[in-house]
This record gives sequence, structure tokens and C-alpha cells, in this order.
Amino acid sequence: MDAVICGIDPGLGATGYALIRATSADRRLVEAGVCRFDASRPLAERLCAIDRDLSAILSEQRPAVVAIEQLYAHYKHPRTAILMGHARGVIVLAAARLGIAVRSYSATRIKRYLTGNGRASKGQMQRAIQITLGLNALPEPADVADALAIALCCASEVVRRGPVEVNA
Amino acid sequence: MDAVICGIDPGLGATGYALIRATSADRRLVEAGVCRFDASRPLAERLCAIDRDLSAILSEQRPAVVAIEQLYAHYKHPRTAILMGHARGVIVLAAARLGIAVRSYSATRIKRYLTGNGRASKGQMQRAIQITLGLNALPEPADVADALAIALCCASEVVRRGPVEVNA
Repeated sequence: MDAVICGIDPGLGATGYALIRATSADRRLVEAGVCRFDASRPLAERLCAIDRDLSAILSEQRPAVVAIEQLYAHYKHPRTAILMGHARGVIVLAAARLGIAVRSYSATRIKRYLTGNGRASKGQMQRAIQITLGLNALPEPADVADALAIALCCASEVVRRGPVEVNA
Repeated sequence: MDAVICGIDPGLGATGYALIRATSADRRLVEAGVCRFDASRPLAERLCAIDRDLSAILSEQRPAVVAIEQLYAHYKHPRTAILMGHARGVIVLAAARLGIAVRSYSATRIKRYLTGNGRASKGQMQRAIQITLGLNALPEPADVADALAIALCCASEVVRRGPVEVNA
């Protein structure tokens, strides 16, 4: 079992992504980064940019699964959350168009998987990611750290059960 | 000045659309309907269906503008609103990809334009749409009535000022 997993932290201003290669024995970082979108540009233009950038990454790397955080019921800033929904929708569509399965995980589950604690702090998460992937430094910025955490959580499931398409 | 305007009421379960032809003298219904998506299917699949259906309508009809309701700050059901955001994002992307300008209008503005009252009831809105377009019956269902209302509101601006791309 050897699979490339792409974790994505969607946002209209910045979308973090992280590609890792997972085997039953280990996890390795393939590539990670942040796609930034000019907040002064119209929404339509930013959505085109997200689609273009993420489609290019997914076409090139052809991950077995795209993993993305689950929606939750309560957001502090509903308008921001709805705008994030626009980005998330475009990203899920980009994956689906390429025939890539999409999975989603709750923030609690991701934290519990990496640290044993569903309410782990940002610092604890960064440290767990650093150790798991054998990185020289803590993963930065937050968008990349979040994308890495989602990818690692998904990898554990994929290695155990193999990829299948599920509801995002 | 003669322009086809497409009003869209986005939703993951049902997306209403309405195409009208507007001149400075009148407004005519070209086509309207509802695209329905199976709620039991995964999100990725529904987003693909929305993209496919709306892209087909927009490619065929080539409206000058796609008009869609503005986001607002407070929603009763944040999770539903975020899911609507997924559909809205995919629709705005579909329009932008086809080079079609996207405009958005607040619910209050749409109601005020059609009835003179920013808090008009559903029935008052249906009646105003019926009269403006010379329809034999009240527009139904709600998704289509909403799409028609948005298209008519946009038409008044396009006829007055001509289409330009604006932030959705």
C-alpha cells in the first residue's frame, strides 16, 4: 500500500495544500504550500484562480484522495464561513472532475488522531506533524499545518482501509 | 439595448434559474426551471451535477449577465448557508469560466425594485413578476420565482447602465 494523499485547507484569501506519500510503514512529505488570492479582486476571479491553481496541483500529483475538513454546525463568523464554502465547493468540484475521491474529517477527529487529544492546541498539532513527517522545523504557516494535519489523518484511514469515495 | 439576463437561486438540493430578455421597453421570459439534485448523493457528485447543468444552460443561452442574490451576514441555519455557498461558488465559477459577468443584489433591493417595498411578501413578489412578464399564472415554484425576481432586478440595472463585471 502506497498512496499520495492531498490535504486541503480551503479559503478565499489563502488555500493551504499538502501532499504526503503514505505507506503502512511511514509518511513522507511530497510537497506543501499556500495558494494566495488577491482579496481586492471580484469573487468570480478568485474562484477561477482557486480552480486553476488546485486543478493544476491535483492533475500533476494525482493523489488517491483529497482530504478536507468537515463542515460543522456553528461558526463564529457566518459570512466568512459561507465564503469559505464557495472555495470548498470549487475545490471539491475540481477533485471530482479529475475522478479523485474526496473525504472529510472533523477537526476533533484530526486532532485526536495526531495528538490523542481532540482539543489539542496549534502548537501541539505542529509538533505532532513535525515528528510524524520527520521535518526539520515546525510546519508553517497555519494553512499548511492544517492541510498537513488533514492529510495525515486521512492517510491513516487510507492505509488501513484503502481509498473509497465518500461524502465530503 | 437588448440583453439576456440569467437569474439564479442557488441550492444543493434545487437550483432555480430564469432567463429573461430585456430591452428598454420590456422584459420577456425566455426560459426558466429548476435543476434538482439528489440529496442522498455525495456532495462531490452534486457539485458536479450543478456545474454540468448550469454550464449547459449558460453555454446554450449565453446571457450577458448572471445575477445571484448577495450573501448576507446572518443566516438562521449556518450549516445550510455554507452548503448553499458551495453551490453558489460552483455557479459563479461556471459563469466566470464562460466569460459571463456576475452581479449580485441584496434581497431587500430585489424586493424594493419589484414592489417598492424591501420587505414584500412572497405573494406580492410573485404578483409583481407575473405582471412585469405578462405571465398567465403566478410563477412557481419558489426557486423559479426567486430566480425571476433576481433577473428582473438585474435587468433594470443592465438596461440603464450596460453590463460590466462586478464583485459577486
